[in-house]
Amino acid sequence: MNRKIILVQRPQGLPKDEDFKLIEEPLNTALEIGEVLVKVEWISIDPAQRVWIGAGRSYITPVSVGSVVKGMGAGIVVFSKSPAFKRGSFVTGFLHWQEYAKVKASDIIRLPSYVNPQLHLGVLGMTGLTAYVAVNEIAKPRKKETMVVSTAAGAVGSIACQLGKIRGCRVIGISGSDAKNRWLTEIGVDGVINYKTVPNLTQALKSLCPEGIDIYIDLVGGDILDAVLLNIKKYARIVMCGAISSYNLKRAPPIRYYPLIISQSASVEGFIVWEHRNKFDIAVKNLSKWIKENKIKHKEHIVDGIENAPRALRMVMTGENFGKMVVRVEHQSPKI
Amino acid sequence: MNRKIILVQRPQGLPKDEDFKLIEEPLNTALEIGEVLVKVEWISIDPAQRVWIGAGRSYITPVSVGSVVKGMGAGIVVFSKSPAFKRGSFVTGFLHWQEYAKVKASDIIRLPSYVNPQLHLGVLGMTGLTAYVAVNEIAKPRKKETMVVSTAAGAVGSIACQLGKIRGCRVIGISGSDAKNRWLTEIGVDGVINYKTVPNLTQALKSLCPEGIDIYIDLVGGDILDAVLLNIKKYARIVMCGAISSYNLKRAPPIRYYPLIISQSASVEGFIVWEHRNKFDIAVKNLSKWIKENKIKHKEHIVDGIENAPRALRMVMTGENFGKMVVRVEHQSPKI
Repeated sequence: MNRKIILVQRPQGLPKDEDFKLIEEPLNTALEIGEVLVKVEWISIDPAQRVWIGAGRSYITPVSVGSVVKGMGAGIVVFSKSPAFKRGSFVTGFLHWQEYAKVKASDIIRLPSYVNPQLHLGVLGMTGLTAYVAVNEIAKPRKKETMVVSTAAGAVGSIACQLGKIRGCRVIGISGSDAKNRWLTEIGVDGVINYKTVPNLTQALKSLCPEGIDIYIDLVGGDILDAVLLNIKKYARIVMCGAISSYNLKRAPPIRYYPLIISQSASVEGFIVWEHRNKFDIAVKNLSKWIKENKIKHKEHIVDGIENAPRALRMVMTGENFGKMVVRVEHQSPKI
Repeated sequence: MNRKIILVQRPQGLPKDEDFKLIEEPLNTALEIGEVLVKVEWISIDPAQRVWIGAGRSYITPVSVGSVVKGMGAGIVVFSKSPAFKRGSFVTGFLHWQEYAKVKASDIIRLPSYVNPQLHLGVLGMTGLTAYVAVNEIAKPRKKETMVVSTAAGAVGSIACQLGKIRGCRVIGISGSDAKNRWLTEIGVDGVINYKTVPNLTQALKSLCPEGIDIYIDLVGGDILDAVLLNIKKYARIVMCGAISSYNLKRAPPIRYYPLIISQSASVEGFIVWEHRNKFDIAVKNLSKWIKENKIKHKEHIVDGIENAPRALRMVMTGENFGKMVVRVEHQSPKI
């Protein structure tokens, strides 16, 4: 049997348990040439999934109602009809919210080892790569520039902060909890703001960035983006990686201070990490090196049981997670 | 005597006559070394002046209350203590809203001729250069791309439209009058929208740009920017030259569809034309050539009398002008 979570209806606002359903299906192990069957061991939970299951205009076809929820995962090949992978290979790719994934060999990639495979869903996976592309490929910070990061303690944000430090920036992190901010300070972030308790975010940014903000790694949009816009320096670069403030809404919360982009000769750039595949090898190589050198620290938030994936998604939407959210699949179907 | 218009109070909303005052002062003709006295013959009226006399955060120190209103102009040198200019030289620069301007020689530039000097405030001046930098230096359109221009019949927009055509783009112009749109069609714009009468701008853009918008030359911000964002194509470039919808307000009208910048891997870039001075020579050379070849047509809207400058500014803010707005100064003071 294969347990999987399907989308029952498109969520209105924050995803609810009723939007999903755990179903059991007989596992079809018949493979076509070029296909492999992967036993999914880790599922990645990411705010972007809220977009994938929504109906808004986006960069992907949304998950259709009745289908398995789209998501990255890591696992072990249990059957293979591809010369590229043999039984026992460790792989990652879009395996979705299910215990077993039948996928084309061309849609998955081999993991270098299976020590902490969840790292390949986080700091060495989509979120770490997103941070790398945002900071090292798009923002290209120079020494002593001031960089602000929102959801700074998150899976993308925390890596972005540390990449900024490696480049010699002053880094200011915005998060929604004092505990997260304490951790950010421990890992070397120069200044922190708790957006939930600060009386005036614009003023707080002004105090921490008296000469203005050179770079903003934006994962949020909305009011925080507006507060940053009010503090951008000449030639500021805003890299839009996400807009979590909008994901549960029909429309994003408004921004009003975009005319400062003109007067400050600033730029805003959006991107989808998958379009930068040609940088992934070097990114993983560099990130691995910096992890080994203790220049990049990372945190995972592990939730056990595939049935808890919807709750885990809700947690990343509200910021209840602390670290990269991953679900550890506990296989209940008989061993194949 | 020197007649000049000073700012009496910062306008609230649309500038009113009472925000300005025409005063007469004795003309001080005593020059320091390096200064010249210019008889101002033409004054340029530009939406950006609304920003310069406002109190918002901008790229320049705002005009202080009690001071002459800042503005570009063209005129004739009547006294010179600089070897760079002699009596009778034709010049342009920030001459402000006054009959005579005492300026540093380094702050003005010589006009190649005094045939239609007002052209050097328009198509060959700040507005034409703004269009040139936006299109040819920042957007860099490729053949067959779809370019949308707002305030398309305006001083910047109309040149931007034609620069798009020269580059081989399909150009769609948005203006606020059918007469303006008829003229846009005459000068080669492929599709036009009257934003004041169209029932649904987003849908209208979708019909005219079924494959999406590659380039948007934005002079407006607000709702029109949102409607464009809903129609941007992958890798779209939005060049922000101005945000006229915000100039009479304390804050700009909101935009909500900025998350599409992420999913479409789009970019937004703001700029101030003065920061691209190194391109001015080549721009004027190219623009002059295209005017001569009839590839660029231009229109000026002339208002007579310095006392009408405030009204002329109001007209460009509401779109009552048709063409680059210039004020022809009628000198009433005795000839020097």
